Amino acid sequence: MNPATNATGELASLMDALGRAAAAAARVIARATPAAKSAALTAAAVAIRDRREQILEANRCDLEQARERGLSSAMLDRLLLDEKRVEAMARGVEDIASLEDPIGVATAEWTRPNGLTIRRVRVPLGVVGIIYESRPNVTADAGALCLKSGNAVILRGGSESTHSSRAIYECLSAGLRAASLPDAAIQLVPTPDRAAVGYLLSSMTQYVDLIVPRGGRSLVERVRKEARVPVIGHLEGNCHVYVHAAANVEMARAIVLNAKLRRSGVCGAAETLLLDAAFAGGAVVVRALLDAGCEVRGDARAQQLDPRVKAATEQDWGTEYLDAIIAARVVESVEQAAEHIEKYGSAHTESIVTDDAEAAARFLAAVDSAIVLHNASTQFADGGEFGMGAEIGISTDKFHARGPVGVEQLTSYKYVVLGTGQVRP
Amino acid sequence: MNPATNATGELASLMDALGRAAAAAARVIARATPAAKSAALTAAAVAIRDRREQILEANRCDLEQARERGLSSAMLDRLLLDEKRVEAMARGVEDIASLEDPIGVATAEWTRPNGLTIRRVRVPLGVVGIIYESRPNVTADAGALCLKSGNAVILRGGSESTHSSRAIYECLSAGLRAASLPDAAIQLVPTPDRAAVGYLLSSMTQYVDLIVPRGGRSLVERVRKEARVPVIGHLEGNCHVYVHAAANVEMARAIVLNAKLRRSGVCGAAETLLLDAAFAGGAVVVRALLDAGCEVRGDARAQQLDPRVKAATEQDWGTEYLDAIIAARVVESVEQAAEHIEKYGSAHTESIVTDDAEAAARFLAAVDSAIVLHNASTQFADGGEFGMGAEIGISTDKFHARGPVGVEQLTSYKYVVLGTGQVRP
Repeated sequence: MNPATNATGELASLMDALGRAAAAAARVIARATPAAKSAALTAAAVAIRDRREQILEANRCDLEQARERGLSSAMLDRLLLDEKRVEAMARGVEDIASLEDPIGVATAEWTRPNGLTIRRVRVPLGVVGIIYESRPNVTADAGALCLKSGNAVILRGGSESTHSSRAIYECLSAGLRAASLPDAAIQLVPTPDRAAVGYLLSSMTQYVDLIVPRGGRSLVERVRKEARVPVIGHLEGNCHVYVHAAANVEMARAIVLNAKLRRSGVCGAAETLLLDAAFAGGAVVVRALLDAGCEVRGDARAQQLDPRVKAATEQDWGTEYLDAIIAARVVESVEQAAEHIEKYGSAHTESIVTDDAEAAARFLAAVDSAIVLHNASTQFADGGEFGMGAEIGISTDKFHARGPVGVEQLTSYKYVVLGTGQVRP
Repeated sequence: MNPATNATGELASLMDALGRAAAAAARVIARATPAAKSAALTAAAVAIRDRREQILEANRCDLEQARERGLSSAMLDRLLLDEKRVEAMARGVEDIASLEDPIGVATAEWTRPNGLTIRRVRVPLGVVGIIYESRPNVTADAGALCLKSGNAVILRGGSESTHSSRAIYECLSAGLRAASLPDAAIQLVPTPDRAAVGYLLSSMTQYVDLIVPRGGRSLVERVRKEARVPVIGHLEGNCHVYVHAAANVEMARAIVLNAKLRRSGVCGAAETLLLDAAFAGGAVVVRALLDAGCEVRGDARAQQLDPRVKAATEQDWGTEYLDAIIAARVVESVEQAAEHIEKYGSAHTESIVTDDAEAAARFLAAVDSAIVLHNASTQFADGGEFGMGAEIGISTDKFHARGPVGVEQLTSYKYVVLGTGQVRP
């Protein structure tokens, strides 16, 4: 027998078994009571705290292997768990447990002239596949969000976090068992075989209803290319702050600093500053960035604001730095700012700072991004900050889910029609 | 030069030009006022009535060619326009004009503890590609629905309806011009080259945001397979009526007859009748179907209800007849009915007839179809009957749009966040 064929056949059997089990569990979990789902999540949080030592031990094992493989320090930091991060993970699961249950909620209801009552009711999507990279806490977040939204989930973590993800996954399983919910509602692909990802994306369409990639650009692009089922994912956040002529200088300074530097590695971090030519405080804002240790790369006019501003190239306008670097350009108007954003942006999050309500309204209407803000930092681009609870990412798609993807965005709906014998004329 | 290569290059240029023009028009149409869009649609309806003779003449030309090519009489009927159908088309466009404008509507609004106000506002999807078959009226319906929802649209009709579609399309263009909206908001692929469909599906991802196939199973399957952008489409409507033990016999008879025979060729027509073993009126219902000229194909127990019932095969349970034929099976319970529907159904529309509210609730919860009804005919599966105005089809997907696809389902949303200088802690 050809060993390669054998391996593929084994992988296919393994993955199909996961898919079948997930589909069966999805039917049960879709109709589980809110109390049962909350109980499972609460028990999972308890298990995470109880097994803290095992989780940290598993993580040390992953870190050791990662160091041997020469992973970058940024990668190692993403992989690292400590007591604080484990506690945050447990609390995150509890937060999801305490969210309002989205399933069965009627989001609209109306009665037709013929007496039919039509109700649009939230239902789960079915089986969700989540493919993620090094952060092991995604195991807990994604598992909990899918359970809360009544979906079964197949988790596929990065090879570098195998042991950590497995240890966390076992806590979720313990939670399901404590609430007498099916084990297969949350499954972790048990093989490191890289072909499993391809199989999940393209050969399990009869079991999987949605794929959510959570990771860097190359992962998301691969998923988009290969997936034969719907995908929710964001490519990147090339976010802009536009400081209008009528902006308050102090507010502009505070918002720009926060938008860029509060955390420069998140997708809601500002990557380009657009300064209106008529804004008097451009130099103040740019100096504040430079003084805070941020590199500024400007066009010719932005360079005139401070001698420390380096020259931007065309490439800078399209770059998501995820670092303490910002591109800066001087524009003539709201419209030119909106044009720049349309040309170079990624339709994620953009903010205008101005005291002129009419200019703000024009900007908010003209810019077609998932999130547009007036007089607030782009770093508010976050499901928690929106009051939606935990999220699985920010979608820059326009289809199905846009912006923060929380429990509601992991649902579909059906129409329940109540009659008294109506037939159609 | 290789003529084939030349043709492909020409087609690519042609289609790319359509795509670029659509994307540019989409930006304008997204921000067009409700009044301008309504005015364009009203003027288009006037043009349809004014040019009735030209439309009918174009249609005669299509019909003649179709007869020469030996198209079936069902196909010819779908292709046929007459005065009544042209008037219905004009009225359909007027109905869409009078719908509430979905764009800019805030579907949710809340304020966070930090004072940020978050508003979820409907926006268009962008550019929609509609691929349809012989019915020329889809040109008017689809063009009008996309315009109302602020999208630009690229229409690709069937080759057999080329002249009719072109004549109708010119009325829509006249409407756009009358309202000073960009011509390219509604475009019709001007070449009969069959390769245009493949190009639209797979090579225009930078211009097209959504593809909607409107036609038979083979078209929808091809679109799903080849499209590199999101698709909304329904595969088929294998709809069920389950008559429960506690059903009123007269109501059951009326609903089953209507669900099957009001129009047997629509996707909401019932294809399988599930009779509860404890329902006393099974023979009455089956006899009514037979007496009305419907063929009934039953399992062994359904065959005992009337000697005219033929034997069903396994294949019958999965067949969308779209004809005066119905499969009939006797089941033991709500749960067995739901299992049958899950196994054989297409998650489109199913109805339970019963006077037992608890049994109805169990059925409505257990059956995961786009539309589930209690004591009403499956033929209500229709955007108009739902009060949503015209529709472009019934989606059996769970992603983005489920059930009737009207103007609201052709939209996305964005979050507009209003602050007073908030930065994220």
